Amino acid sequence: MNFRTDLAIELAEQIGNTTRQSYQTDQQEEDGTIVSHTKILTPEGEKQFGKPVGDYITVEVAPFSDSVTDSAQEAEVIARQIRLLLPEQDGLVLVVGLGNLSVTPDALGPRVIDGILATRHLAGEWERVAGQEQLRPVAAMAPGVLGQTGIETSEIIACLCEKIKPSCVIVIDALAARSLKRLGRTVQLSNTGISPGSGAMNRRRELSRKTLGAPVISMGVPTVADGVTVGCDLLAVEGLDNEEAARTLFAPEGQSMLVTPKEIDLLIGRASKILAMAINRALQPSLSQEELSYFVS
Amino acid sequence: MNFRTDLAIELAEQIGNTTRQSYQTDQQEEDGTIVSHTKILTPEGEKQFGKPVGDYITVEVAPFSDSVTDSAQEAEVIARQIRLLLPEQDGLVLVVGLGNLSVTPDALGPRVIDGILATRHLAGEWERVAGQEQLRPVAAMAPGVLGQTGIETSEIIACLCEKIKPSCVIVIDALAARSLKRLGRTVQLSNTGISPGSGAMNRRRELSRKTLGAPVISMGVPTVADGVTVGCDLLAVEGLDNEEAARTLFAPEGQSMLVTPKEIDLLIGRASKILAMAINRALQPSLSQEELSYFVS
Amino acid sequence: MNFRTDLAIELAEQIGNTTRQSYQTDQQEEDGTIVSHTKILTPEGEKQFGKPVGDYITVEVAPFSDSVTDSAQEAEVIARQIRLLLPEQDGLVLVVGLGNLSVTPDALGPRVIDGILATRHLAGEWERVAGQEQLRPVAAMAPGVLGQTGIETSEIIACLCEKIKPSCVIVIDALAARSLKRLGRTVQLSNTGISPGSGAMNRRRELSRKTLGAPVISMGVPTVADGVTVGCDLLAVEGLDNEEAARTLFAPEGQSMLVTPKEIDLLIGRASKILAMAINRALQPSLSQEELSYFVS
Amino acid sequence: MNFRTDLAIELAEQIGNTTRQSYQTDQQEEDGTIVSHTKILTPEGEKQFGKPVGDYITVEVAPFSDSVTDSAQEAEVIARQIRLLLPEQDGLVLVVGLGNLSVTPDALGPRVIDGILATRHLAGEWERVAGQEQLRPVAAMAPGVLGQTGIETSEIIACLCEKIKPSCVIVIDALAARSLKRLGRTVQLSNTGISPGSGAMNRRRELSRKTLGAPVISMGVPTVADGVTVGCDLLAVEGLDNEEAARTLFAPEGQSMLVTPKEIDLLIGRASKILAMAINRALQPSLSQEELSYFVS
Repeated sequence: MNFRTDLAIELAEQIGNTTRQSYQTDQQEEDGTIVSHTKILTPEGEKQFGKPVGDYITVEVAPFSDSVTDSAQEAEVIARQIRLLLPEQDGLVLVVGLGNLSVTPDALGPRVIDGILATRHLAGEWERVAGQEQLRPVAAMAPGVLGQTGIETSEIIACLCEKIKPSCVIVIDALAARSLKRLGRTVQLSNTGISPGSGAMNRRRELSRKTLGAPVISMGVPTVADGVTVGCDLLAVEGLDNEEAARTLFAPEGQSMLVTPKEIDLLIGRASKILAMAINRALQPSLSQEELSYFVS
Repeated sequence: MNFRTDLAIELAEQIGNTTRQSYQTDQQEEDGTIVSHTKILTPEGEKQFGKPVGDYITVEVAPFSDSVTDSAQEAEVIARQIRLLLPEQDGLVLVVGLGNLSVTPDALGPRVIDGILATRHLAGEWERVAGQEQLRPVAAMAPGVLGQTGIETSEIIACLCEKIKPSCVIVIDALAARSLKRLGRTVQLSNTGISPGSGAMNRRRELSRKTLGAPVISMGVPTVADGVTVGCDLLAVEGLDNEEAARTLFAPEGQSMLVTPKEIDLLIGRASKILAMAINRALQPSLSQEELSYFVS
Repeated sequence: MNFRTDLAIELAEQIGNTTRQSYQTDQQEEDGTIVSHTKILTPEGEKQFGKPVGDYITVEVAPFSDSVTDSAQEAEVIARQIRLLLPEQDGLVLVVGLGNLSVTPDALGPRVIDGILATRHLAGEWERVAGQEQLRPVAAMAPGVLGQTGIETSEIIACLCEKIKPSCVIVIDALAARSLKRLGRTVQLSNTGISPGSGAMNRRRELSRKTLGAPVISMGVPTVADGVTVGCDLLAVEGLDNEEAARTLFAPEGQSMLVTPKEIDLLIGRASKILAMAINRALQPSLSQEELSYFVS
Repeated sequence: MNFRTDLAIELAEQIGNTTRQSYQTDQQEEDGTIVSHTKILTPEGEKQFGKPVGDYITVEVAPFSDSVTDSAQEAEVIARQIRLLLPEQDGLVLVVGLGNLSVTPDALGPRVIDGILATRHLAGEWERVAGQEQLRPVAAMAPGVLGQTGIETSEIIACLCEKIKPSCVIVIDALAARSLKRLGRTVQLSNTGISPGSGAMNRRRELSRKTLGAPVISMGVPTVADGVTVGCDLLAVEGLDNEEAARTLFAPEGQSMLVTPKEIDLLIGRASKILAMAINRALQPSLSQEELSYFVS
């Protein structure tokens, strides 16, 4: 059976320990936060995971809608992972938010972009205002979705990259998990970009160094699960394997259905805030949290 | 097993034909649109349906995201059902949109309110502008949700009714269906108001003539199904009955999950447009569609 | 000539020092922030100011769109003024945001409400989540505007007060200043509520202890000036007094025009953030800033 | 004195009749709507108008917030002007909405884009759904503003044009008028694109056949006037010329101020609806109004 998930950590659980030459996993704790690394190493690993060779990092955050947590500290842990993935040389970073602002569980990308400090145009002006010089140039964009624009998101980003030549692209997207327990509790980062078919909404095109001409870091939080996948899991509990039946009920007439928490607005609100904070901190180490929160309002 | 649905028509299917003294059903076609009536007649019917004695009307509209249809005609069929449910005497109508604008499948109510022509305050001014006199006074409000305001929606509406004394209240809410096939394809109207536990988000309080002091018409479109319900249905296909297993996967740690179409933004956009149009036409028969669309922009 | 302003501090400048028995002014610095008090003392003062007897506090904040500032510190200074105006006994506080979310310079009220921690409904649940007990009950509401609802805002708030019996009401509104220099730089607080004709949009009704049955604190930031007022000021520079001419150009055919900064979105974004932070801190002294920012996301 | 306006018709009034070789004007009535043409003919005309040689069409619509009008008919008149300006050959049209969705008077462009039927991606799918073949390919985009993205709008559009090679670009922008009477009452169309310094917000870059490689039609509605301009006009009424004084009051510390109607939300709502309707009708003559309104929801 083919379970739909964008999380390397769930795929590793599913694949199991038998074929460990193709990938490595590793887990550690940073400031009370669990950080897991999954490295896909070989073409065989690519086939097993359905994902390209590369590093996949998972940060387990507190459930976004349940208790008081120190989100500044979590953002700092995530910022540290971003710095690990950023290329060594400085230079312009383009941050792209995929997704549809009008569909709450798909709004993560555009909502993160709202919180990114864009600085590419500031240059001298910034110096005047803040008496600082070392701002890293950042551009930020939420290109919308194909149904609204008639243009593939990948086309927009590719031509933008040709024009502004970023040294690195960070792409944010809402993800699908297999387990509903993970929704809003996991931040996944990777240095492999976006594969076709990934994302909560099954994005159609690849976004990678190959297609964009610059290294691509992808970041996301699972906000949905696929109904058919959870349905098949339910049948499996009873020892049954009948994807057809799951599909008849959970994807009637071939329509895609999302399973998503009732409190998805809180989940998206907090996830987008923590990701924006982490990205800003990773890209502008010379600014304090107060300064960042002032500029980003 | 206890399947969650707000649709009387689904409950009638489930209950079956054995005990027909407790309720009546009836179906007809109006201008190419199927209109079904379910009348709950007795206290026994109330128990069977878990809904109060009264009339439940279902209008089957074209799927909101699939083909070109004459939505003006569908709105007119719905407007006709509203007129059937309105009390005979004229007077102020209060239209209330339940739900949370920030959660797409729960945004139906507030989105309909955006399209309602509020006229209670116009009076003489209107005469000046449009040269018309026979506008029915209408007030419209989306009171938000408990988590945002700290106030039960029912408290807000009840005190508003005491203040402005409407002759009738129309309450709009997103609904839950049992079958995902029905999402976005059904408009349910009823003269019984809102029961506790109904609505896509399980509204907690009753809104009825008893609590508001005026007859209450409820209108809604199913936008979600409950994961556990569809999971139980899936097991039933295999002859199994294990709500516990469905609950473990589809409501992990007791969290409520919604199942909703990927294109929920289009569904909500079109459903709110057609309901607003239907309500405006039912309440302001002296205005043409052009005039209504001008004022409602 | 009759200059339109909602700021007591501008009215005091205009009235001048001649008749000081009717009011008192006072200025001090708190943590680098200038705080001015204007006390209207007598019925004569009421006539001069066109505002009721009471205290008007002005906090001068850094321009909302110009430089890096410590907004947490400014919020704390404002929170201190709120505490001075709050009645001594504890109890439910209702926070109301006046204005229209769809008109940027009038969106201050609703935007502040988005950031208020509503707690009235939490009670025991809160204890479970945060291990805290001393949360003050708070309700928060943005009732919309007459043109959208057909209901006077004052009617909605009055009936709500009858229902939930707050010990105090805090009303937020966008204000009009006479001088464009003050836009976004001044927070005005008062213990007199809202007078008819005040606010950026000329609210039509009074909101006060008399109409609501509880003490009313009003808070606002000037976001607009009235075109005719600035026009008259311009003529006055040249020694001329011709309101008719100013009205012909700045209020053609009697239409009201707003003068507002091009960067009004930044102004509103920052002003609403700082006011929400100040109100939350004043009402929930047992919560740290981190906890507040977590809950309010 | 230098009055700020984007309307060729106002510039023509100001320049007067003396030098008529440099431009031509012409006025006619279509279906009860006044349509004016201003043709700038010579380099001298370019200097006088501060605008490139080309055609400027003004359609006078009913005031957007005052009376019942047949907006479908007005949209048809505007659609006719668009067809006059469109290049003869068919092919992809890119519709671009300039401006900032978060500043009501600058939101015209993005709001129009919300209503444009994007079809470039539909192709075969459309045939299936609607049984139609002759859809013109259309792409639609609102690229946001420099302060949010760090990227000049003109850069985004230029690279998009290189990628998707439109046969024509339509650019929508909110405009500045000199006279407040014209706000919301005028639609200007032109075949010259966007000049630097034009638009309600003083866009900084040119968008034209020269910069985009395809003919550019610009469309806009005045939503603001510049405070200094109206101030200077007021002084001129009294025979005075003192831009410095106007600037001191209306642009304090060099900040730009907008003068805009209090009911700007209604103005923008209706203007964006009528422009979107006109563009859709001009580009998709094979679709009826009902079909268009269904798809555009």
